[in-house]
Amino acid sequence: MENNQKPSGMPIHKYRPFHEQIRVDLPDRTWPAKRIETAPRWCAVDLRDGNQALIDPMSPERKRVMFELLVKMGYKEIEVGFPSASQTDFDFVRQLIEDGLIPDDVTIQVLTQAREHLIKRTYEAIAGAKQAIVHLYNSTSILQREVVFRTDRQGIIDIALEGARLCRQYEQSIPETAVYYEYSPESYTGTELEFAVDVCNQVIEIFEPTPDRKVIINLPATVEMATPNVYADSIEWMSRHLAHRENVVLSLHPHNDRGTAIAAAELGYMAGADRIEGCLFGNGERTGNVDLVALGINLFTQGIDPQIDFSDVDGIKRTVEYCNQLPVPERSPWAGDLVFTAFSGSHQDAIKKGFEAMSARAAADGVSIDEIEWAVPYLPVDPKDLGRSYEAVIRVNSQSGKGGVAYLLKTDHALDLPRKLQIEFSGVVQEKTDAEGGEVTSEQIWSIFTDEYLPAPADDDKWGRFELLGTRTQSDMSGDVRLDVTLRDGDEHDDVSGVGNGPIAAFLAVLRDRGFDISLYDYVEHTLSSGGDAQAAAYVELQVDDQRLWGVGIDGDISTASLKAVVSCVNRAIRTRERSSELTAV
Amino acid sequence: MENNQKPSGMPIHKYRPFHEQIRVDLPDRTWPAKRIETAPRWCAVDLRDGNQALIDPMSPERKRVMFELLVKMGYKEIEVGFPSASQTDFDFVRQLIEDGLIPDDVTIQVLTQAREHLIKRTYEAIAGAKQAIVHLYNSTSILQREVVFRTDRQGIIDIALEGARLCRQYEQSIPETAVYYEYSPESYTGTELEFAVDVCNQVIEIFEPTPDRKVIINLPATVEMATPNVYADSIEWMSRHLAHRENVVLSLHPHNDRGTAIAAAELGYMAGADRIEGCLFGNGERTGNVDLVALGINLFTQGIDPQIDFSDVDGIKRTVEYCNQLPVPERSPWAGDLVFTAFSGSHQDAIKKGFEAMSARAAADGVSIDEIEWAVPYLPVDPKDLGRSYEAVIRVNSQSGKGGVAYLLKTDHALDLPRKLQIEFSGVVQEKTDAEGGEVTSEQIWSIFTDEYLPAPADDDKWGRFELLGTRTQSDMSGDVRLDVTLRDGDEHDDVSGVGNGPIAAFLAVLRDRGFDISLYDYVEHTLSSGGDAQAAAYVELQVDDQRLWGVGIDGDISTASLKAVVSCVNRAIRTRERSSELTAV
Repeated sequence: MENNQKPSGMPIHKYRPFHEQIRVDLPDRTWPAKRIETAPRWCAVDLRDGNQALIDPMSPERKRVMFELLVKMGYKEIEVGFPSASQTDFDFVRQLIEDGLIPDDVTIQVLTQAREHLIKRTYEAIAGAKQAIVHLYNSTSILQREVVFRTDRQGIIDIALEGARLCRQYEQSIPETAVYYEYSPESYTGTELEFAVDVCNQVIEIFEPTPDRKVIINLPATVEMATPNVYADSIEWMSRHLAHRENVVLSLHPHNDRGTAIAAAELGYMAGADRIEGCLFGNGERTGNVDLVALGINLFTQGIDPQIDFSDVDGIKRTVEYCNQLPVPERSPWAGDLVFTAFSGSHQDAIKKGFEAMSARAAADGVSIDEIEWAVPYLPVDPKDLGRSYEAVIRVNSQSGKGGVAYLLKTDHALDLPRKLQIEFSGVVQEKTDAEGGEVTSEQIWSIFTDEYLPAPADDDKWGRFELLGTRTQSDMSGDVRLDVTLRDGDEHDDVSGVGNGPIAAFLAVLRDRGFDISLYDYVEHTLSSGGDAQAAAYVELQVDDQRLWGVGIDGDISTASLKAVVSCVNRAIRTRERSSELTAV
Repeated sequence: MENNQKPSGMPIHKYRPFHEQIRVDLPDRTWPAKRIETAPRWCAVDLRDGNQALIDPMSPERKRVMFELLVKMGYKEIEVGFPSASQTDFDFVRQLIEDGLIPDDVTIQVLTQAREHLIKRTYEAIAGAKQAIVHLYNSTSILQREVVFRTDRQGIIDIALEGARLCRQYEQSIPETAVYYEYSPESYTGTELEFAVDVCNQVIEIFEPTPDRKVIINLPATVEMATPNVYADSIEWMSRHLAHRENVVLSLHPHNDRGTAIAAAELGYMAGADRIEGCLFGNGERTGNVDLVALGINLFTQGIDPQIDFSDVDGIKRTVEYCNQLPVPERSPWAGDLVFTAFSGSHQDAIKKGFEAMSARAAADGVSIDEIEWAVPYLPVDPKDLGRSYEAVIRVNSQSGKGGVAYLLKTDHALDLPRKLQIEFSGVVQEKTDAEGGEVTSEQIWSIFTDEYLPAPADDDKWGRFELLGTRTQSDMSGDVRLDVTLRDGDEHDDVSGVGNGPIAAFLAVLRDRGFDISLYDYVEHTLSSGGDAQAAAYVELQVDDQRLWGVGIDGDISTASLKAVVSCVNRAIRTRERSSELTAV
């Protein structure tokens, strides 16, 4: 079998391999034989590098939530902003300091360019903090020297040294704050190593590091330009050539353009770095910064304490999604919705046997299962340790030539169920499947769905206590809506009405009059196809007395669909309650 | 500054480092000095490993769309299913063969376990194909031997050899098909290397590879268990110890549990592999398979032809999202929505200067910009080469202490704009900002939004031609809704009515009576907060004569909100039309 691949026709002539741009030559590298044995020093830059890459930057309140999360997880160095470039960042730093929000063992870090008015402003921002890291940077790459700064190497060195000297000078203005320094030759990956080390070493001399006051030299992969082993080689080379290495904290700041930032951080750490900067779930410019959650939990799975608490990864995710207003992807390492899910039968079987073997081993040793080594196929970590659970998704309908439940409802019936309802309904299907056995066809799924959520055909009144027979809504644009409904309640037909700021509110009022303690939690609606005469589907999640559950309504009238969904939900609540009291009676 | 990090309290005693489980010892490794210079052989496993990890597995139609995409992109080896384990996979393979959908230079690959009835069925599935790869696997790891198969090394070898022999036997049943073989010691990363090579070499003997009929030995990181350099070491070790290496195609199949699958594939390829299996955008079990798009475009950025066409990465993304029913994340390498976006002013400035320098250079050389080397800061590839564009997002409102436009509307006004409307509205804001200059405050943004989409206060009638003064809807549950509205049309007040299967349909009928050619394209609605008495916001996208645009309505009554959104949209259409004829008149 020959290789039949053909040239793609893509314009490869525009690109030059990395090794023709920057020489990284380290034949006696030692990092590939090293192993990671302790956590690095972490620095979380969510509030600066992460925030600057958001469609919607964090509000002060969101920033504070993020800061508190990072502190709670255990991060001790937190870059909180670029206060000289942004009034909001400045105000946030002031708030942290003036409201006393920074624990004594946490050091805030602020970024600044090497320009006097920015440096001056930076020190104004951190005045009053117990300690702070001033993070000075200027760009050093060949490309930026040529097209942005139009200067030579000496010009770039002058910018860095002038910045460092100004820092030392303004440091005097806030004697009550312990100031530490970090220097980044920005765009390091596009910089010749000899030049990068030259700039860094000259800056180090100005900062005069001591064992008690080390200087952080941060080597950012501002743009990830090569395979991660090349970054590691460059880090080992720098580590060997940095002056006063014993008083330098060598820091990494990998971006993820090529999708290998996690590897670059790990290999760079093996190559001699001491510290890693990144963001939770890899937020940041373009493809993001390196993902601190993945790095930390990777250590954990090797029996190494990350010194960060990941025991509630779902809570961390929720908070980060709130702060960043960006979803954490389904397949994000250790945290995505799907990473502890097994769909394949053979995986599920192996996992089951793994759990059984662990139980047997623990029993034989007379200890709890949490005291023995974790060993379950396809689950490299115990989801429980991260506050997650393992989910075996049994996909019904694999023999019907169709996809799964949600897919089927969407393609065959145009119903796009909210994810929470998908989960609720898969439980319903599971229950019926277990009870009846055998394959479930697509027709059966639809029948289970309609049985559960939609009213029975007119001549079959066993479906539920309530039925909607007619509605009339009236609005005078004042804000309130009056709803008149003809309602079947058991065998009675009643004309009733309610008022609320919308039909659902008015209808809930009607139901409260009948003794239900009821409130609305979620509401989703969509048309079933485009075009003005489409049907609409409405989904409501209600709390009905002590139950939280969903209802579904379908109607050409959006408003009616939502009322039908309420009826569906309340009827389900009544059925469930009756069934559980029957079970109790038995 | 000392390191203040504290123990996390996480149960690290449950985990053992990888090197204590599996020994990979290769002090004379050569891969760290290697460079990638050509594309590997690719095998796309989206239709098997990818599909098996979907919440909703692909329908036959979706599978066919995926297959056609992979063929069009240039993949020549495509794993199309596990036909002996799934009737749908079997039917799909038959369809491909019987409908003649497989180009002559494309080889399909099918997975099978090493069990006779499954192998027999596999050959039935591929009968009639010009050529096919039969991919035989069995699990070999220490853990699976112990807890799943409860057998020793010899037992595992027997399974593999018996499977290989059965393959050779059933091969006789389809002499018209050129059958090639792939063998995977599944859970390879948890297998002792000496044992893995032993199994592989014994299987190789049975398959009797020749230069014309090489055997593929695939070494899956079924679970990614260590840093990627360890995987590379193991691959180099295996490459040195595999029998008949010259007739073996050494293949990688990295999963992404630790987030380093791309690195593992690249380093493993440097370590001597010939071939890589993966999925577009890294779909697959748990955290996914290695991302073929990232791997391919990574090569492209180094001037290496990936032999796969990525010139329309958005089109690829759309198709994959359709097939997988999973979104490609915003920061997915080379393809995510945000990866060519610059938010920071200094990045935007540097990018601008990079473009200018390229233009100047091209002009000086008398050539087009597409003929010279790409060199723009923060953009490691020309987005145009991937069918993308660079976007500089100018975030208004950075001085107001608030986030961006969409964020502001959501937090301050609880409006969750659909993304298409966000884009439309950011254009509106941009226009006003350019016209008026200066900073835009959060109040101004709200004022621009209400000016554009929401009715003016009652005593100011300049906002639009139409206004809704009262509505009444009536439904007898038959399917049709009758809508009576009191409508202001210019200075007239009219009582009009329409019928449709919902209020929007009925209202569009009313507007068509007034001469508009109008149809509904999109409709989104949400409550503004939870609780039964919340307001609702409705967003409609309409085609009004020759314009496609959005309207917004807010009301306590869901139905009224949607009618207001229609009014908003139609009024905007009229305003836009009038403004453009004014401009023409000037």
